[in-house]
Amino acid sequence: MTLNILFAAGAARWQDYQMPLREGLAEAEIDANLSLDLDPAEVDYIVYAPDSDLQDFTPYTRCKAVLNLWAGVEGITNNATLTQPLARMVDPGLTQGMVEWVTGHVLRHHLDIDYALARQDGTWDRYVPPLASDRPVTILGMGELGAACAQALVGLGFPVTGWSRRGKAVDGVTMLSGDEGLDEALSSAQILVLLLPKTPGTVNLIDAAALSKLPEGAVIVNPGRGPLIDDDALLAALESGHVRHATLDVFRVEPLPADHPYWAHPRVTVTPHIASETRAASAARVVVENIRRGEADEPFLHLVDRDQGY
Amino acid sequence: MTLNILFAAGAARWQDYQMPLREGLAEAEIDANLSLDLDPAEVDYIVYAPDSDLQDFTPYTRCKAVLNLWAGVEGITNNATLTQPLARMVDPGLTQGMVEWVTGHVLRHHLDIDYALARQDGTWDRYVPPLASDRPVTILGMGELGAACAQALVGLGFPVTGWSRRGKAVDGVTMLSGDEGLDEALSSAQILVLLLPKTPGTVNLIDAAALSKLPEGAVIVNPGRGPLIDDDALLAALESGHVRHATLDVFRVEPLPADHPYWAHPRVTVTPHIASETRAASAARVVVENIRRGEADEPFLHLVDRDQGY
Repeated sequence: MTLNILFAAGAARWQDYQMPLREGLAEAEIDANLSLDLDPAEVDYIVYAPDSDLQDFTPYTRCKAVLNLWAGVEGITNNATLTQPLARMVDPGLTQGMVEWVTGHVLRHHLDIDYALARQDGTWDRYVPPLASDRPVTILGMGELGAACAQALVGLGFPVTGWSRRGKAVDGVTMLSGDEGLDEALSSAQILVLLLPKTPGTVNLIDAAALSKLPEGAVIVNPGRGPLIDDDALLAALESGHVRHATLDVFRVEPLPADHPYWAHPRVTVTPHIASETRAASAARVVVENIRRGEADEPFLHLVDRDQGY
Repeated sequence: MTLNILFAAGAARWQDYQMPLREGLAEAEIDANLSLDLDPAEVDYIVYAPDSDLQDFTPYTRCKAVLNLWAGVEGITNNATLTQPLARMVDPGLTQGMVEWVTGHVLRHHLDIDYALARQDGTWDRYVPPLASDRPVTILGMGELGAACAQALVGLGFPVTGWSRRGKAVDGVTMLSGDEGLDEALSSAQILVLLLPKTPGTVNLIDAAALSKLPEGAVIVNPGRGPLIDDDALLAALESGHVRHATLDVFRVEPLPADHPYWAHPRVTVTPHIASETRAASAARVVVENIRRGEADEPFLHLVDRDQGY
């Protein structure tokens, strides 16, 4: 039987994904009709991105699963027409890219590379940073991405504290959870990395009260979700110097408007949502594996818990 | 018997080392008279730094070993009055600091963090770097420091090639040696890290011919020794763009003179010899361990091969 697989993630992504998907399906010996345009009633699987034109899932009566190409699913979990199982993307390439970005920026702030770059004026000013073992890092959010980043930072010698609602354990990481755990996680964080999903419980989690619990001179690195941070509170904490620097990759509105105060702020580094990027080659393998599982009546990977929102 | 241990590494370092050395000796139950000033004929061990006032070792007739606080020994190996065993410092703190500095700057160049820092002008320009797995790094010099850096970079997913005269093997690292090996190591190096000692065979190793073997747009990171690089050749390669950037921590003359072209060059980052810094706490433990070995007639750690110069 030939499977009908609808690619509903936009024509631009079709360029990147068509070949890796076709190759993966062939390798898995799945006979499939992969297309941008199929009769909804005959679609077996939907390869999806939340910015797709497809927003009404009602006519896809035969569809066994919606396979998201993004890690973030907040743009789709509220869609009442979506009754099919929804899998989010856990792309090893995306995870690896996130580990590199987070490790790079944590080391940048740890070593104060910005200071070195700003002192190319002939001044031989020997600032030797402490060792990583004296630089506690806290990661809020210990899902796939947070756990992988924690592991890399532990490997480099940083004392890492992880905070997570579900409290997943990671070797060498001090795990905390709950409100009290959050206070403790914040109070020791010389560098705070935000890798929480956007849920009703995490929006504005980093508000004035949370920021005040950070040690003086802490650095914030946010490759997670823009709304985790109360922007006005962060700007105030940067103004007072309580927060030494913020490196932000995600924002409430993207692209970040050119007149947003973050752009010109000397203590803020804006990066244009580049920390987590799904890579077509590895992501296509995950999509194909989920289709194989669906056909073999095995449980899907990375199913979204619709009640929790991720 | 009370050992006489002369601290001949300057009064400034005495501040940092006195306590850790005394504590370490007490812990090892070594009865010692540690001092800045002792009768040469009665000295059992010398804790040393090459910038010391002590340059004539002739009167130290009883001395069993000279224990250097620096990793580099080129300032002392030519001293004909030094006939005692000479141990260089292999400080786990120094190694760890070097790993952090090298990993931080390799990731900085890999992610092109400089580009992000230069684009804080409101332009949402999504540059997504390749994954580390597509960014070959070559390390010249696979001693303690090179091997530790190689291991950290392999852990982050970089394909690492190591080149070394002695050809030490490191898990996950492609090892090369000899002239032909050097050509191969250079030709694949998108990022080239120099961690060779300064010896007659390594001075100006990175000359115009070597630079021409690097792929177009390679980056050089030198936390090893200044004279490894032919400075004029590097400036020419930077000018032509063949070398995209050089991050240099060590120089022929230090402090690097304020009018040296490296300071103002847009493609050069100067850091003031901060990559490798001996840390008193961990270095004192190494010194004490060598004294313990000397007294127990066990072989000294990290003895210098005077013929090789390191």
